[in-house]
Amino acid sequence: MSKAKVLIESLPYIKAFWGKTVVIKYGGAAMTEPQLKQDVMQDIVLMKYVGMKPVIVHGGGPEITKAMKQMNKEVKFVDGRRVTDAETMEITEMVLVGKLNQEIVALLNQHGGAAVGLSGKSGNLITARKLMNDGVDLGFVGEVTHICPDVITTLDRDQFIPVIAPIGRDDEGNTYNINADDVAAAMAVALNADKLVLLTDVPGILTDPKDPTTLLSTLRVREIEDMIGRGVIKGGMQPKVRACERALNGGVGKTHIIDGRISHALLLELFTDQGIGTEMVV
Amino acid sequence: MSKAKVLIESLPYIKAFWGKTVVIKYGGAAMTEPQLKQDVMQDIVLMKYVGMKPVIVHGGGPEITKAMKQMNKEVKFVDGRRVTDAETMEITEMVLVGKLNQEIVALLNQHGGAAVGLSGKSGNLITARKLMNDGVDLGFVGEVTHICPDVITTLDRDQFIPVIAPIGRDDEGNTYNINADDVAAAMAVALNADKLVLLTDVPGILTDPKDPTTLLSTLRVREIEDMIGRGVIKGGMQPKVRACERALNGGVGKTHIIDGRISHALLLELFTDQGIGTEMVV
Amino acid sequence: MSKAKVLIESLPYIKAFWGKTVVIKYGGAAMTEPQLKQDVMQDIVLMKYVGMKPVIVHGGGPEITKAMKQMNKEVKFVDGRRVTDAETMEITEMVLVGKLNQEIVALLNQHGGAAVGLSGKSGNLITARKLMNDGVDLGFVGEVTHICPDVITTLDRDQFIPVIAPIGRDDEGNTYNINADDVAAAMAVALNADKLVLLTDVPGILTDPKDPTTLLSTLRVREIEDMIGRGVIKGGMQPKVRACERALNGGVGKTHIIDGRISHALLLELFTDQGIGTEMVV
Amino acid sequence: MSKAKVLIESLPYIKAFWGKTVVIKYGGAAMTEPQLKQDVMQDIVLMKYVGMKPVIVHGGGPEITKAMKQMNKEVKFVDGRRVTDAETMEITEMVLVGKLNQEIVALLNQHGGAAVGLSGKSGNLITARKLMNDGVDLGFVGEVTHICPDVITTLDRDQFIPVIAPIGRDDEGNTYNINADDVAAAMAVALNADKLVLLTDVPGILTDPKDPTTLLSTLRVREIEDMIGRGVIKGGMQPKVRACERALNGGVGKTHIIDGRISHALLLELFTDQGIGTEMVV
Amino acid sequence: MSKAKVLIESLPYIKAFWGKTVVIKYGGAAMTEPQLKQDVMQDIVLMKYVGMKPVIVHGGGPEITKAMKQMNKEVKFVDGRRVTDAETMEITEMVLVGKLNQEIVALLNQHGGAAVGLSGKSGNLITARKLMNDGVDLGFVGEVTHICPDVITTLDRDQFIPVIAPIGRDDEGNTYNINADDVAAAMAVALNADKLVLLTDVPGILTDPKDPTTLLSTLRVREIEDMIGRGVIKGGMQPKVRACERALNGGVGKTHIIDGRISHALLLELFTDQGIGTEMVV
Amino acid sequence: MSKAKVLIESLPYIKAFWGKTVVIKYGGAAMTEPQLKQDVMQDIVLMKYVGMKPVIVHGGGPEITKAMKQMNKEVKFVDGRRVTDAETMEITEMVLVGKLNQEIVALLNQHGGAAVGLSGKSGNLITARKLMNDGVDLGFVGEVTHICPDVITTLDRDQFIPVIAPIGRDDEGNTYNINADDVAAAMAVALNADKLVLLTDVPGILTDPKDPTTLLSTLRVREIEDMIGRGVIKGGMQPKVRACERALNGGVGKTHIIDGRISHALLLELFTDQGIGTEMVV
Repeated sequence: MSKAKVLIESLPYIKAFWGKTVVIKYGGAAMTEPQLKQDVMQDIVLMKYVGMKPVIVHGGGPEITKAMKQMNKEVKFVDGRRVTDAETMEITEMVLVGKLNQEIVALLNQHGGAAVGLSGKSGNLITARKLMNDGVDLGFVGEVTHICPDVITTLDRDQFIPVIAPIGRDDEGNTYNINADDVAAAMAVALNADKLVLLTDVPGILTDPKDPTTLLSTLRVREIEDMIGRGVIKGGMQPKVRACERALNGGVGKTHIIDGRISHALLLELFTDQGIGTEMVV
Repeated sequence: MSKAKVLIESLPYIKAFWGKTVVIKYGGAAMTEPQLKQDVMQDIVLMKYVGMKPVIVHGGGPEITKAMKQMNKEVKFVDGRRVTDAETMEITEMVLVGKLNQEIVALLNQHGGAAVGLSGKSGNLITARKLMNDGVDLGFVGEVTHICPDVITTLDRDQFIPVIAPIGRDDEGNTYNINADDVAAAMAVALNADKLVLLTDVPGILTDPKDPTTLLSTLRVREIEDMIGRGVIKGGMQPKVRACERALNGGVGKTHIIDGRISHALLLELFTDQGIGTEMVV
Repeated sequence: MSKAKVLIESLPYIKAFWGKTVVIKYGGAAMTEPQLKQDVMQDIVLMKYVGMKPVIVHGGGPEITKAMKQMNKEVKFVDGRRVTDAETMEITEMVLVGKLNQEIVALLNQHGGAAVGLSGKSGNLITARKLMNDGVDLGFVGEVTHICPDVITTLDRDQFIPVIAPIGRDDEGNTYNINADDVAAAMAVALNADKLVLLTDVPGILTDPKDPTTLLSTLRVREIEDMIGRGVIKGGMQPKVRACERALNGGVGKTHIIDGRISHALLLELFTDQGIGTEMVV
Repeated sequence: MSKAKVLIESLPYIKAFWGKTVVIKYGGAAMTEPQLKQDVMQDIVLMKYVGMKPVIVHGGGPEITKAMKQMNKEVKFVDGRRVTDAETMEITEMVLVGKLNQEIVALLNQHGGAAVGLSGKSGNLITARKLMNDGVDLGFVGEVTHICPDVITTLDRDQFIPVIAPIGRDDEGNTYNINADDVAAAMAVALNADKLVLLTDVPGILTDPKDPTTLLSTLRVREIEDMIGRGVIKGGMQPKVRACERALNGGVGKTHIIDGRISHALLLELFTDQGIGTEMVV
Repeated sequence: MSKAKVLIESLPYIKAFWGKTVVIKYGGAAMTEPQLKQDVMQDIVLMKYVGMKPVIVHGGGPEITKAMKQMNKEVKFVDGRRVTDAETMEITEMVLVGKLNQEIVALLNQHGGAAVGLSGKSGNLITARKLMNDGVDLGFVGEVTHICPDVITTLDRDQFIPVIAPIGRDDEGNTYNINADDVAAAMAVALNADKLVLLTDVPGILTDPKDPTTLLSTLRVREIEDMIGRGVIKGGMQPKVRACERALNGGVGKTHIIDGRISHALLLELFTDQGIGTEMVV
Repeated sequence: MSKAKVLIESLPYIKAFWGKTVVIKYGGAAMTEPQLKQDVMQDIVLMKYVGMKPVIVHGGGPEITKAMKQMNKEVKFVDGRRVTDAETMEITEMVLVGKLNQEIVALLNQHGGAAVGLSGKSGNLITARKLMNDGVDLGFVGEVTHICPDVITTLDRDQFIPVIAPIGRDDEGNTYNINADDVAAAMAVALNADKLVLLTDVPGILTDPKDPTTLLSTLRVREIEDMIGRGVIKGGMQPKVRACERALNGGVGKTHIIDGRISHALLLELFTDQGIGTEMVV
């Protein structure tokens, strides 16, 4: 009986999100902890069945590092970005496209979805260029210059769930590794998405990082500068907030930074009034 | 969190019923008790949003009697069927089409559906003829001779929920009141439905009607004759079982006789393994 | 041979109206006289078969009064509008939706149409609010606030003829009886109709109401105020002219106030050069 | 008023023929008398507007002879078939396709149709071969070997009226003049038409050719042999009856041999119960 | 192997023109020399198969003159335009529509196309009016007033190649012979074509008509007046350049005046970088 | 000019293959030699632009071995099949999906195609099971049990070129490496392809493997057993011939074993009468 009650309580959320595109940046613990992985996949398949259009963009840092070590390849970071020579890029692509992307596709299908794995090369989905980091050349680290969403639109017509590896290509044929948050934000803009959700390993934006009760439930774009100035948003959270900002400025309805370490975080965010994590709006 | 759990537990059922047509005979307490009414409407709207195609056929006996009394019209029954002269038929049609059907449509729409009310006259949906009851002429009491489901198909294309009053018409222009269980069964066959659900005021088929623990959870078509012979299926249950039998013989996947007095009976039937009430299969 | 001649003479009219939407307010004698009823239904089915898209909105005043008397319910009018308490509204809805609408649907289908009856509740077709009549509260007498024509569009795709009862609903769930001329005008605007035809019990607008030879064959919107000021348009004709005015201002091509007491008035209006009644244009 | 009456009387016929394909062999007086020409064109445009799908196949004998004489070309017939050398074929094609077909197209369009002229070469509509007439080689006189109706189907989708000149082509690139009755019959079969109507210069099949009161109103396929044996069907009527027979055997619903000298003969045939001329059925 | 090389070299051109509409004015030697005829037809069918949408407009001057002489009809020209009385118009139409158009259609189909012949009367494709030539009445010589491209659009949907005879009609039912270059230009504008190609009997625009090495490979619209002033563009070339100018001003991408006496001139123009003849751009 | 000639000579082939599905097994030298790679990609993009539907299935043996060595993983073969433990499977998937597939997609897109990379996991394209090799367990070496071609059909609708890595999955979630020839054959059957082309490193089937002049240009299915019996078909050619046999028995029109070491081998096969390599037919 309580089951029926929960379902009925979900009805307003189901109605509200019916037919809506939700881009999900999938990464962190939700991508490494076995149980969390299953949970997220179930959440996404459920989203699909109740009428939403989830689009997955995944990262994969730790696996790349692991594979590089296995191949006796030195791992080097500058300002949190991996220095990526040609060989590193090749390993990165193999891990992202040939391992992690495949694994996500398989899991979604196992739970009843019909997922299709895509790198940014398929259908010219992601065009990129070398990212210049204050004049430091990090090699094949890129940024998005153009999203061609045709292949997503085509797949959507027959209810496939796209799963995207953050790999882009420039006109000279170079392959780039791109930050997955940035790809997710650009994808959300190109697809005119209603929501962008970043699964992270923190509860959201905390005004005091040590005190989880200081979670900001809502943040407005105009407050960002001040928050950064005051040091509330800093470190790894800063580029995430910037990605959300770009998405919102590009027309995405809402963005969410949520805690992927919580079981079924996506459903909690989508199907409860209070949600979890930090929501950003214009 | 338990909410997410319930939703995820529902996923296999949602997948199983996605795109399936479910004809629901709506009547009894579920149609008179204010809270139960709300519950059923929520259930139906939820069914629609998670991808099913619910089609509602409703009865209305008590309201017809009430209206007849209000109009000082004598009420007469023979073998549980209302003797229906021309004036009674007019009152019946007004109550079924102009009151009850409207009320159901309004309630569904209030809960976020897009329901459309139909009598069997609209789009020539139900063709009927006079029902001869062992040679007794009951007047304008009819039985279905043909269902023309075009209007249902048309409305389905744009996600409308059809709500059908059990009124039919013959080629001479006579209007007939038809048993709603029979209309629901005929509709389920014509629509090639996956399920027919009869909402009743009993727990299902009980081998001992006084003992609810004797509920038959499953019944096979081939067992019906014996059950009737042994008096297990009798009285008002008999025509309901016969309606289910016709539906199953006509190609409907499963039929269910469930207890509409239970809150959210539809969801319980659809979203739990054990279900409620008595399921009939070929 | 003269038959062929008539058909050929009709060709220019058929061509002119092919694919055009014509909203018809059906009421008065054409709705009560048995022969006139048959005639109108034939006209409408013919319109459909020669390529027009007729949409019927019907009234029903006299039948409501009759039913109220039958139920010993007092009938009260203020300024020509029925005072409508909850019980009256219930009777009104039953008569309009459950009797008159059904009768029209059945007649159209008997003549070969495929009509579908709709109240303003179906598909949220008509949203209404309480009509305030110079501060006098008449109860559940409403006015149109919004038309959602989706259900009409859906039915049109498969050649169904919609027949609409002038019942609306507000967001609180209250049901309102609305003037059928006003519903027809609002419907014509929402459907971007080419024509609005009001079937009445007068020859059209007469400058001298006692002299039928003083019929105005054409009236322009800008002449209305003057005509009202001079008392030419008065009484029951005034709201009809206002309804036409609203339709014309809302983009409807032409409106016609014609004499429904004339046999096949619709065809005469549509298929002869002089037409009948009074035509209004911008 | 009588106009409305006629229109209403036509309604059953309009309903019966709605959406039906009617192939019309156009020739004889109806193609040469100026007033009859106008009448036929009006009939065809009317047929189109009331929902039928008329397809016109025309002949042109007299005009070809006239043009040949103008060009000082000798005209020779064997058994009623024109001996057709290469030059004659060229003249024939110019007259049929470049003059008569164009004229029919222009007249239909003038009356509000949207006709498109086609020879059997367009879209490979008619493949033909040399007709061997008891061993006599008549030159480029052909018979239909295959109809490729794609271009008709394409044009039908946008409501164009096809007008077909009876010219065919073989795989070697030879052009043939084909009997228009035969083309019409083959076209009716290929289009799965409901009716084939041959406009002729006789009242139909008369048992006594001198007595118009001996008109056979209906003929069955199985009666043909006997009728020919008895000399009732003879001369030019025989190939027409054979064409009808082939059409009926090929699945066409009915065929009609009617008197094109009667004004609006098509409408009389289609819109009156008795029809005119001789109807053939299986 | 060199074959593969050529095909691969063509790929960039095939890609560039995929889905593009190319209107071709067909005339001159390419229409009279047997081998050139075959070549052009092959070119057009190839264009169709590699994804372009060729639309053919043909002339026919010499054949008309020939036919007129055959019929002992005097041929008279004023300023290069044929004086066209009613009889001449009839001959013109027969030759253009009934002979030349048919021949082109047959040749294209022989090479594997699915061509459909059209005069400007079919589907009301070309509406025209009398062309006044400095006050001189040349009879039925016309100019385009309106193109209704619906029939082209319809045929295009099923991959037919339209072949158009330059015949137009006015509202009074008069038929006009129109300059084929002008029809091609108007057609290109109405179809929003990417290219207009005029097949002529000269190499293009030569600054010294006697020296083929003085061929202008490109001409801009703004240079035309000056070129005419300086006498570089004169005689028969002038109206061709004006037709191109109108097409370019009407939104056509590029126009080409090429030498139809060169075998496969169309392919050379489309599939080589340098092209042939003179290209005009805005 | 010779260019035009070649194009025109290709026209019959283009016509013959228009709209046809051609499955290409891509492997061997054509996949490793830089120039040959470019050539094949151009061939495929050209095929797409002239109306064919190429579907690519690629192998990747040498690259897998190379990657395994790089990771210090021992490489072991039994009867020509790689022993594939879990770690080997992971490397295999990374190389096939994350490197080779990506490279092919990128090259095709660079040449103007719109390729989309797919493993057999995407859209549940390839279901597989463990291949038992005469009782020897080779680990995750699989064979196709089912192809679900929906994702290919979806992508085809918008002109994408699918590029498939021969990876399959069973219901327990195990991943298998499958022989690419076998996947190509199964894919050709599931897509109802007209052609299956295997790019190999031999000229085709030679009756004397040392003498290229003994190439069999055509082989019939019924001759296979005899050829194997006589030792003409042996070694690595045997499974290829068996794959072709299965394809032909499954309804594929023709299969081709051609020499991928020849530049533009695909075009030579498709666009010349003699073709290259060995063609197999039923």
